Amino acid sequence: MTERVRVRRLPEKAQTDRDSLHAVLDAATVAHIGIVDHDQPFVLPMACARDADRLLLHGSTGSRLMRLMLDGAPACATVAIIDGLVLARSAFNSSMNYRSAMVLGVARIVPDPLEALRLLTEHLLPGRWDTLRPPTRKELAATQVLELPLDEWSVKVSAGPPEDEPEDLDAPVWAGVVPITHTLGAPIPAPDLRFDLPPPPLS
Amino acid sequence: MTERVRVRRLPEKAQTDRDSLHAVLDAATVAHIGIVDHDQPFVLPMACARDADRLLLHGSTGSRLMRLMLDGAPACATVAIIDGLVLARSAFNSSMNYRSAMVLGVARIVPDPLEALRLLTEHLLPGRWDTLRPPTRKELAATQVLELPLDEWSVKVSAGPPEDEPEDLDAPVWAGVVPITHTLGAPIPAPDLRFDLPPPPLS
Repeated sequence: MTERVRVRRLPEKAQTDRDSLHAVLDAATVAHIGIVDHDQPFVLPMACARDADRLLLHGSTGSRLMRLMLDGAPACATVAIIDGLVLARSAFNSSMNYRSAMVLGVARIVPDPLEALRLLTEHLLPGRWDTLRPPTRKELAATQVLELPLDEWSVKVSAGPPEDEPEDLDAPVWAGVVPITHTLGAPIPAPDLRFDLPPPPLS
Repeated sequence: MTERVRVRRLPEKAQTDRDSLHAVLDAATVAHIGIVDHDQPFVLPMACARDADRLLLHGSTGSRLMRLMLDGAPACATVAIIDGLVLARSAFNSSMNYRSAMVLGVARIVPDPLEALRLLTEHLLPGRWDTLRPPTRKELAATQVLELPLDEWSVKVSAGPPEDEPEDLDAPVWAGVVPITHTLGAPIPAPDLRFDLPPPPLS
């Protein structure tokens, strides 16, 4: 771990093993990418998928973010999954439960764009890729998949019940956690669907 | 709108009215804040709540991010709510539906920390604030609430069914949208709850 990614606030929530990093990244569909342009930071959401020790990021050729990243600008990819509201007996000790990861580095074009696209598609909906026609050469040329190596990173996880001050425990107020869940809803068929097909199975 | 926040990619998805900005920010509980430190961008999630024409951000005194922001470092606050997976008949046209907002600016300490804390608490769980004791002076001193003025921003919304190539419409593959919903689950009482109290009503 480098000094740049040392967890300073609530360091007891830091996790330093690679499995924890992978678990957080694998639970995310979107990463927030930070890039600097003329001293101004920009943060944009991008579809992401982890593959071994790289984080795949999907964007479009021609976007400013992509151009800057390809020019070698230092990047930060942050993933945060909010798991719940932590309701303490005081506002001060109320918080959220979350799993978050931050990866610093310089992104580069993937050497295997087709495989990277497949991994991104499969990450969002396992089994989908094989039902689709392969991308055309033109489509591949218009797509940019970048990879950020998982070299410099931090992970922070907050879980469990609220931690109240001892003197607050007699306050007659409910305390606990309200979980936040992210679920897939009932599929909505496209209006121009020409066949009576079942929607894909959702994991 | 400034050139810095002009939507370049898929500009037809840009929305430029202030009501759209407010709607996206009001739907978010967390913003991803970008800050530059020695040419390296850092992106960190922070609890947020909009109040009139400012975005309130909640952090802790002493964090690096807070220190940099208070030193006047340009910031970017990005909110992205993922509403669904858009399954087209090709990988290329598959995407996600989302509502996103990006705000650029320099954050400052709120002039009204107690009211700002109340707004942040109420944003997460309406009605909660009045059930809690007021923060102590010490707690207020250990909390930092910043505000980012809603002066320079962009909003991008992607909604609706997939848009496929005409030649793909005969492919025998399901197409449509799989909604992603973010819901509050059954409250989990704190293990040290001393009273038989009902959990707070969830909106």
